[in-house]
Amino acid sequence: MNCLRLAGPFLLAASTACGLARANDLPSSEDGTGVAGRVFVVERASESLAVYDLLRRRLLPQRIEGLGNLRHATMVFSPDLRYGYLATRSGKVTRIDLETLRPSGEVYSSRSSIDNAISQDGRFLAVGEYAPGGLTLLDARTLKVLKRIPGSFERDGQEQRSRVTGVVDAPGNRFVCVLMEGAEVWIVDASRPGFPVEHRIPTPHPQPYDAMITPDGRHYLVGHLLSGHVSVVDLVHPERGAREVSLRDPHRNFAKAPPVKLPHMAAWAVAGEAVFVPLVGEKRLAVLDRATWTFRCSVPLRGHPVYAVASPTEREVWVSFSGEDDDAYVQVVDTARCEVVRTLEVGGRIYHMDFTPRGSHVLVSANRANQLVLIDANAYRIEDREQLRSPSGVFGAWRAFRMGL
Amino acid sequence: MNCLRLAGPFLLAASTACGLARANDLPSSEDGTGVAGRVFVVERASESLAVYDLLRRRLLPQRIEGLGNLRHATMVFSPDLRYGYLATRSGKVTRIDLETLRPSGEVYSSRSSIDNAISQDGRFLAVGEYAPGGLTLLDARTLKVLKRIPGSFERDGQEQRSRVTGVVDAPGNRFVCVLMEGAEVWIVDASRPGFPVEHRIPTPHPQPYDAMITPDGRHYLVGHLLSGHVSVVDLVHPERGAREVSLRDPHRNFAKAPPVKLPHMAAWAVAGEAVFVPLVGEKRLAVLDRATWTFRCSVPLRGHPVYAVASPTEREVWVSFSGEDDDAYVQVVDTARCEVVRTLEVGGRIYHMDFTPRGSHVLVSANRANQLVLIDANAYRIEDREQLRSPSGVFGAWRAFRMGL
Repeated sequence: MNCLRLAGPFLLAASTACGLARANDLPSSEDGTGVAGRVFVVERASESLAVYDLLRRRLLPQRIEGLGNLRHATMVFSPDLRYGYLATRSGKVTRIDLETLRPSGEVYSSRSSIDNAISQDGRFLAVGEYAPGGLTLLDARTLKVLKRIPGSFERDGQEQRSRVTGVVDAPGNRFVCVLMEGAEVWIVDASRPGFPVEHRIPTPHPQPYDAMITPDGRHYLVGHLLSGHVSVVDLVHPERGAREVSLRDPHRNFAKAPPVKLPHMAAWAVAGEAVFVPLVGEKRLAVLDRATWTFRCSVPLRGHPVYAVASPTEREVWVSFSGEDDDAYVQVVDTARCEVVRTLEVGGRIYHMDFTPRGSHVLVSANRANQLVLIDANAYRIEDREQLRSPSGVFGAWRAFRMGL
Repeated sequence: MNCLRLAGPFLLAASTACGLARANDLPSSEDGTGVAGRVFVVERASESLAVYDLLRRRLLPQRIEGLGNLRHATMVFSPDLRYGYLATRSGKVTRIDLETLRPSGEVYSSRSSIDNAISQDGRFLAVGEYAPGGLTLLDARTLKVLKRIPGSFERDGQEQRSRVTGVVDAPGNRFVCVLMEGAEVWIVDASRPGFPVEHRIPTPHPQPYDAMITPDGRHYLVGHLLSGHVSVVDLVHPERGAREVSLRDPHRNFAKAPPVKLPHMAAWAVAGEAVFVPLVGEKRLAVLDRATWTFRCSVPLRGHPVYAVASPTEREVWVSFSGEDDDAYVQVVDTARCEVVRTLEVGGRIYHMDFTPRGSHVLVSANRANQLVLIDANAYRIEDREQLRSPSGVFGAWRAFRMGL
């Protein structure tokens, strides 16, 4: 009895789930795939998540629905891959059971959320809030709100309230986030009771709009609107404050245009000792040295970049674009040569890209084409296209094992 | 009915598994943890695997038994975390269902195996064989033997047969391995029918004993018995052959002694642009530059190193030792300063160490102490000790998402 397994849509033959099946007894097709092969795709317009089975190259028949406003939604995963957590612009956080593919709890952390992260011990969620602005700490198991930290800051002697974004996990069971109006980086200690804000670090420029952490958990990078600079906080030395780093190319001027779509900084690519930054309103990537944070080179591109995603091989960065002339294309940048080596036409209005964890494939959502596209990253060959409803963010379960995702 | 979930020892309340449970309806303790939080520990003497639940900090009550000779056993995981595959010195490969924690198939690939790997597409297993020497390709789903490639090589006009070790996955759905007597690196193409050996690359030194691949999948490193050199193959340019790289310290002589235990090369640590190599029979790590493969520095140690494991933060390498005077200790090397910054006493005869994927903890098996030890990697504090039977290899399910593991 205790080896019966009926999980979600998968009904396994008892001979498979129970005891020792010899190799030639194994079923050929009913065998369900495991949770880590499931990729969750945000369907913006229909407030739903579609689920793609990466091993079988097929969309699962069920959707997860009624999730709230998904115009900007982020999903994180518990370290044991039991649950995913989706934060939404409705302020609703939904917990998804990754086995049954059903919601297993929800809570309103605010009226509008932008971002979330899970602590490295898996116990706490932090949600970045737009309205009212602040950071909400949740118990990942019970979904109880444990603390609401208002995004308070002082300006001209007045206490004001800021939106909070760029929420990431960091070593030492910390969360890091940035205040958009407050222009402060906060480091919150989730290893101590009460979640104290242990550092408030002013950024040298105003109007932070997004932030990211390097994959080693060392540096927190903040982008600023209307600025040719980013702010960098060394999390090993927060007492040194935020450093101003220029993205300008000293050797060449690139035309500037108002951005059609603001690049998410979560999409900055780190490959080896280089950081590839999609410039706002310029047709290039800026490449910075990760050790010194100095400018290395520019990579000219066909359009205004949105996402730059590094292959786990660190040999390539794949870039997507904004604007109807360019947004169906992906350009592949050779990281050693610092130049585009290939251009792929994938499908209209690419919103998100992600490499599979060993780098064999790239998953791309093409919003206008209503497709999820699977590309063989070695052969640059499209292997699968699935019809979806207004697809946006692509979240593979393997993100559970990467800092800052 | 289709949301009933009875899996292995976990019986979930129907209210949890079915539909939407509000946060305050969630059970407090019966809630099973997901497959990705399970750590499999080889128990050498009893031919069993113990299973540790990392989130709950407890050993699961059931063991997986009857697995064969586990004096040297390696476990790999399917990319969807549905299965683990254990290769053994009995030549038996057992597939473990990660949900039910029971064997779900077995096959004898030879009379004695040393190593295994899974292809990046999850379809094939490659097993390195000692007897008879060669590489066996298995279907990961049916466990059928698809091909046996004898470890054949020519010497003095004679066809001879070699043991095969150091089996890893590599980009392009390749497998790479090394012939111990044949002194050749093989690159096998698992993306083409028949698994052709597309490159046979002689190593500049004889007697390869183990090998590894860098985490970016670029370089394959081969260690040689009784040699101060390693061989390095650039997998992007296999036609260039194997390069000889010296581990000698040009500035200082270290005493040499016969090794008590040969370091596994799987344990070489790559952190940023440096490779940390445990020297055979010397009380130091050699640090090589990953870009140029030149010698950078030596890190003097308290004993003969066995394992060197890099933190995902890349800021530390943790080292274990052979010999009764040293084998209960772990030394922590600061990768920027290239020196030991801390020494921890953990438990007798440390056999294996592994970081959790975001670097918050280290799992250590102490064979003589019969313990699995969980260490908080930020506070250097032992958080849990579990009694096991002769523990050896420690395999966290997150290895599914790292090349070469």
